[in-house]
Amino acid sequence: MQAQTEGRREANLALLLRTLRARGPLSRAQLATGSGLSKATVAPLLADLERRGLTERAGTTTTQGRPGQLVQLRPGAVCGIGLDVHPGHLGATVTDLTGEVHLRRQTSCDTSAPEHALDRLADLTRRALEDVPKADWAGVTVAIPGRADRATGTATADRLRWRDVAVVDGLAARTGLPIGRVDLDNEANLAVRAEHDSDPVDDLVYLTGDHGVAAGVIANGALVRGADNRAGEVGHMVLDPLGSTSCACGRRGCWETQVGLDAFLHACAPRHDQVHNPELAPGERMTILRTRAERGDARTLDALHRTAAALASGLSILATLLNPRKIVLGGYFAALQDWLVAPQRHGRTLVSASTLGFAAGGRGAALAALRRVLDDPTVVPVKAPKAGGSHEGASA
Amino acid sequence: MQAQTEGRREANLALLLRTLRARGPLSRAQLATGSGLSKATVAPLLADLERRGLTERAGTTTTQGRPGQLVQLRPGAVCGIGLDVHPGHLGATVTDLTGEVHLRRQTSCDTSAPEHALDRLADLTRRALEDVPKADWAGVTVAIPGRADRATGTATADRLRWRDVAVVDGLAARTGLPIGRVDLDNEANLAVRAEHDSDPVDDLVYLTGDHGVAAGVIANGALVRGADNRAGEVGHMVLDPLGSTSCACGRRGCWETQVGLDAFLHACAPRHDQVHNPELAPGERMTILRTRAERGDARTLDALHRTAAALASGLSILATLLNPRKIVLGGYFAALQDWLVAPQRHGRTLVSASTLGFAAGGRGAALAALRRVLDDPTVVPVKAPKAGGSHEGASA
Repeated sequence: MQAQTEGRREANLALLLRTLRARGPLSRAQLATGSGLSKATVAPLLADLERRGLTERAGTTTTQGRPGQLVQLRPGAVCGIGLDVHPGHLGATVTDLTGEVHLRRQTSCDTSAPEHALDRLADLTRRALEDVPKADWAGVTVAIPGRADRATGTATADRLRWRDVAVVDGLAARTGLPIGRVDLDNEANLAVRAEHDSDPVDDLVYLTGDHGVAAGVIANGALVRGADNRAGEVGHMVLDPLGSTSCACGRRGCWETQVGLDAFLHACAPRHDQVHNPELAPGERMTILRTRAERGDARTLDALHRTAAALASGLSILATLLNPRKIVLGGYFAALQDWLVAPQRHGRTLVSASTLGFAAGGRGAALAALRRVLDDPTVVPVKAPKAGGSHEGASA
Repeated sequence: MQAQTEGRREANLALLLRTLRARGPLSRAQLATGSGLSKATVAPLLADLERRGLTERAGTTTTQGRPGQLVQLRPGAVCGIGLDVHPGHLGATVTDLTGEVHLRRQTSCDTSAPEHALDRLADLTRRALEDVPKADWAGVTVAIPGRADRATGTATADRLRWRDVAVVDGLAARTGLPIGRVDLDNEANLAVRAEHDSDPVDDLVYLTGDHGVAAGVIANGALVRGADNRAGEVGHMVLDPLGSTSCACGRRGCWETQVGLDAFLHACAPRHDQVHNPELAPGERMTILRTRAERGDARTLDALHRTAAALASGLSILATLLNPRKIVLGGYFAALQDWLVAPQRHGRTLVSASTLGFAAGGRGAALAALRRVLDDPTVVPVKAPKAGGSHEGASA
């Protein structure tokens, strides 16, 4: 009986946290209405959340002449770290429960050597823990541009030349974090969750625009992973079977050979042009190309127009099959949205550019790392009464 | 309080019915284990189901030396009617709760005149009610090869030349059935539910093979309808943008222009050949073509091989995007499975032929009509004690 009551208590704490997260500062009465709990139940639960440092008071509101205390999530109380891996560079994002980004860092790295990449991911993790010292840490999640096996903690990604790389064990060993605080998932799946977090529509598709092209699909409000965790590998839809370009997967005519970043950069400029320099961050390369396009450079504009047309072919298929409310385009598609996103029209499906840039996967990963706390707020310890501003991390 | 207890009771009755449906004859102890209810709770609920004529005793089993009475669903106790509409013909299917088909009838009909088609659908409904007289009737569901708006009870289908046809009102008025007993849904969505009913895998696609080609998609165990109820309209994926054939939708190169039944029949035989005779049922036309293929007729075989290749292009896209456990091909694909289904290989996705033929939508519709009883068994009235074999219909 006790266990059942406790389970109910954790679930109710989680419900209050999610309600505050979705609807901003609320009075106790509003929180009761919003969560479906009684005011008498809400009061002690709120006190519990405050003791854990998760919520704080936020002024008062007046409803029907009676003043009421407002409560909100405490910014920076608990943070999650999201790491993103791309051919040639790594990123780290720290967000708190409110979704605010406390840190975004990017660094070039030869990611084709997995052990070296894991060393650098561990460095990024340690620096994040140091740079946001006041937070409790929920955990770390790594966004993989390929297959992430969450059961074994391993990743396989053709573009990175990774095969069954033990990401979770490797990162836990290097940072000293417990295995249970380290997780990984597919980049597109994490990115679509980040988009869903800011606009929770039931039917949503996110398309990565990087060296690889993959879709994160939410249908009926739930992520579609497929029978073998391979749903959304749309870069390998064969749309140009007579095409001459071989894909990294060994086939010809994959959508990725038409609209992937490699194909696009190749179409934009000769081999020794600075846009091919792996030392430049993707965002910097896109700035160069945007400038060229705005100046009317013929080769750049031709590449943009051909890419927009090939993008339209594939997006039309996604829209026809899934009928999503919205398709969000990320990566370089978003960076060059005036040419690549604006021309897209696919029935009643809204096509828009992600505002998260190349870091969408990392942002989704940081939010995924926070899920542990959102599912059960009691994993965050109760703070000592009258504690100063500095809460020690739960795990760091 | 009373209402809440009643709600719980109905939910528990529904749970027992579904458990019996999924696992065949069970003892009271097995039913308790299978449903998660206590043996003390199960006993009076079972008595209730029996009083409604939904269950019956089915011999005994011996477990650990102790004999136990087995219970099963009573065959033919409650039936649902599924109606299917195709260009040129109509069908009716009656199934009971066990899934057994009690009646399948097919008739040619000029379906392009909606009022005439509704008259004939009402005839089929009345004949079904007469021909299975001992059943309680759950209701009637119509499978539409196009868009079914369940909120308004209307259907729009290009292939039938139907636009906002008031199917539910029209059929209710003609048969005297209450509006709440008449429903409609998209044919592919109903067919995939029929397939899911016999093999409940979480990620499943059904592809209709008729004049139109559409997919019913189940992901995470739930039907994907999309934001505007238009998901699965895969016949209109543009796979051959340079193709010369115009589609009924006004575009060029839709998958349907390559693999729809019209395109296939056109490729198989000249215009005056008997396979184009609308008086022949689709199954009969397929038998003619199968015979020709088996005799090595060059034109038929060429059409089959080209259709198999175009089918493979689209199936590859479905498999890549959705990563389903299984894709089931219906209609003429299934009728000519040796040439059209057997050659298909798409990663780890199993591709198989439906065993339900052109009536898969009708079968799914009959099962959907039974949902009302499966959700709440108390809609079936308690039978008079010592009643003879003839139960009067609840609504008919």
